[in-house]
Amino acid sequence: MAMNLTSRHLFGPGPGNCYPEVTAALAHPVIGHLDPVFLERLDNTCEGLRKVWGTANARTLPLSATGSGGMEAAFVNTVEEGDVAVIAVNGLFGERMCEVARRCGAEVVRVDHPWGQPVDVERVLEAHPHPKVIAAVHAETSTGVLSDVAPLGRMKGDALFIVDAVTSIGGLELLADDWGIDVGYAGTQKCLGVPPGLSPFTVSDRAFERRVKDPRSWYLDIGLLGGYAGAASGSGRTYHHTAPVTMIAGLEAGLDRILNEGLETVWARHRATGAALQAGLQELGLTLFAAEGHRLPSLTTVNVPDGVDSAAVRRYLLENDSIEIGAGVGKFASTLWRIGTMGPNADKSTVTLVLGALEEAIAKA
Amino acid sequence: MAMNLTSRHLFGPGPGNCYPEVTAALAHPVIGHLDPVFLERLDNTCEGLRKVWGTANARTLPLSATGSGGMEAAFVNTVEEGDVAVIAVNGLFGERMCEVARRCGAEVVRVDHPWGQPVDVERVLEAHPHPKVIAAVHAETSTGVLSDVAPLGRMKGDALFIVDAVTSIGGLELLADDWGIDVGYAGTQKCLGVPPGLSPFTVSDRAFERRVKDPRSWYLDIGLLGGYAGAASGSGRTYHHTAPVTMIAGLEAGLDRILNEGLETVWARHRATGAALQAGLQELGLTLFAAEGHRLPSLTTVNVPDGVDSAAVRRYLLENDSIEIGAGVGKFASTLWRIGTMGPNADKSTVTLVLGALEEAIAKA
Repeated sequence: MAMNLTSRHLFGPGPGNCYPEVTAALAHPVIGHLDPVFLERLDNTCEGLRKVWGTANARTLPLSATGSGGMEAAFVNTVEEGDVAVIAVNGLFGERMCEVARRCGAEVVRVDHPWGQPVDVERVLEAHPHPKVIAAVHAETSTGVLSDVAPLGRMKGDALFIVDAVTSIGGLELLADDWGIDVGYAGTQKCLGVPPGLSPFTVSDRAFERRVKDPRSWYLDIGLLGGYAGAASGSGRTYHHTAPVTMIAGLEAGLDRILNEGLETVWARHRATGAALQAGLQELGLTLFAAEGHRLPSLTTVNVPDGVDSAAVRRYLLENDSIEIGAGVGKFASTLWRIGTMGPNADKSTVTLVLGALEEAIAKA
Repeated sequence: MAMNLTSRHLFGPGPGNCYPEVTAALAHPVIGHLDPVFLERLDNTCEGLRKVWGTANARTLPLSATGSGGMEAAFVNTVEEGDVAVIAVNGLFGERMCEVARRCGAEVVRVDHPWGQPVDVERVLEAHPHPKVIAAVHAETSTGVLSDVAPLGRMKGDALFIVDAVTSIGGLELLADDWGIDVGYAGTQKCLGVPPGLSPFTVSDRAFERRVKDPRSWYLDIGLLGGYAGAASGSGRTYHHTAPVTMIAGLEAGLDRILNEGLETVWARHRATGAALQAGLQELGLTLFAAEGHRLPSLTTVNVPDGVDSAAVRRYLLENDSIEIGAGVGKFASTLWRIGTMGPNADKSTVTLVLGALEEAIAKA
């Protein structure tokens, strides 16, 4: 069908376009989830994930769910009835954490921030004297804000520290071990340049020891999952569920691509692209939403100018240039645009294309 | 990497090989999960799923998880603390249902059957006077048994009827509405000829009305998911999580392939292949495990002959013919082989190849 072949410049909040090596891997023949060739691939994928997470955690693996499933796995494995979860909320994904933690039985202590601002470490640490977990979003996809989460990890005390790295992994500096992250979850469809459908996940030994032993979820139980992937590399693997082999082949290809280029180089490419886009947008007379000094290189939030129809501009871009950019979220739905420069789109040509097309669309839409 | 290109005849319990149209679709460009082109694709996919499920249920959609995630979704949306779940257990997946239902808070009433036998409707119905749910596996992947679940659906009374159709959907007759199935879950990697990673899911209006209103899982909450896909087709869609767009493109292609061939024709092809394989295996002097009259066409279980090393035969097949067949499960791990003839492998050539290769492997391994 013709519609299968629609090709877009995916400059929204994700999914972004895939690295070409990933697209190729997705079309390779399927192999069995217990085939020695696949198990080697899974081990290689977990090893690649350790590198982009910046961790030596044995339990680092791709969960068979999207990033939101990873968020659920983070809480269902760490909190149960009556446990206190202190959650920093500075955007939609912090909000979602509160809802997910509540359903896991946690007593949620929510620390609200204005959207567009980074997480205030001091307020989060003062919110409760002895929480079971503290959670924060590293890169808020809803607002385009990057928060320095390392101080929370350093000063967390007895708490387990949960971090959402959906929009940072594979594109921005991420040092889970140095930063004291105990449980991290992410997505594949942003800077990793892989389609959505898996959640890169990592759990420290400390968190594993203090995990919920009989969690409400069987599917996301890290005690069972560790027996198949991650911790079990090379020895005594036990079947849990049928691994999504094709998506894992795609993820392996994306990780290989990034690690061959070099993590520092990839981070620099994302930084340079984000900076150029943000400068260019301001030169066009537009203003940025996220607080200065805390802007995500991988996702830029722009205020829609007064009198401009936000949706009409997005529609113009899609129909005339096959460019997708994102709307805002919640009360900012029609006052923000979100422009992603992730994975292969973290490139100078993206900046040139977006600036040219957006200027035209604002004038003509 | 060369290892990406390993090609196998996937004649195990799944994943099986994909239909070629699926492989092609997986390599098409990624599009956004809110793109009008994708939303049309999602609607088309849900419509195709209704046909293979044999249902008119509005809430019929691909869950962003594997079949085991679908199982969890079935229970987390229907049972909570203290609800009685009567579960027919005639293999591994019935066992798993008990564990998943227990974690959802259900009081599990388990009705055990000898492995290799179909579900005994009378015993299941007599197990409890007023269960909230009754659950059974249509096609037991661990034993190769097909159970007639329609009588349970017809006589379920007030209970909600949950059915596992992982190894039947898209290959065997499945008539969810006629059979009184309230909640059905399946997988993509068997007869649908699509890689693993999604769970085709369907919920009747009756089950939706009686669902758990605040389920423990946010990710699998059908009340929220229905707002994005299925029930919401064409109107007022609300974002829940980023849909796995590439896997859905693959699923759409698999469904189109099957529906173009014609469901009845596809069912007949699976039946003929299974019958030919089962006859041929017996002509080789092998005996079958599943009770006669209840054998799955899509997955055949064979007793390993005395004195034959089960694992050595499987290894021989893999190394010499690039053929994967499955081992048994649990206490039958080394006494059974499981041979799948699913999707594109439901074909005469599979029978010829398996019989020839297996005869050689038993003699030489």
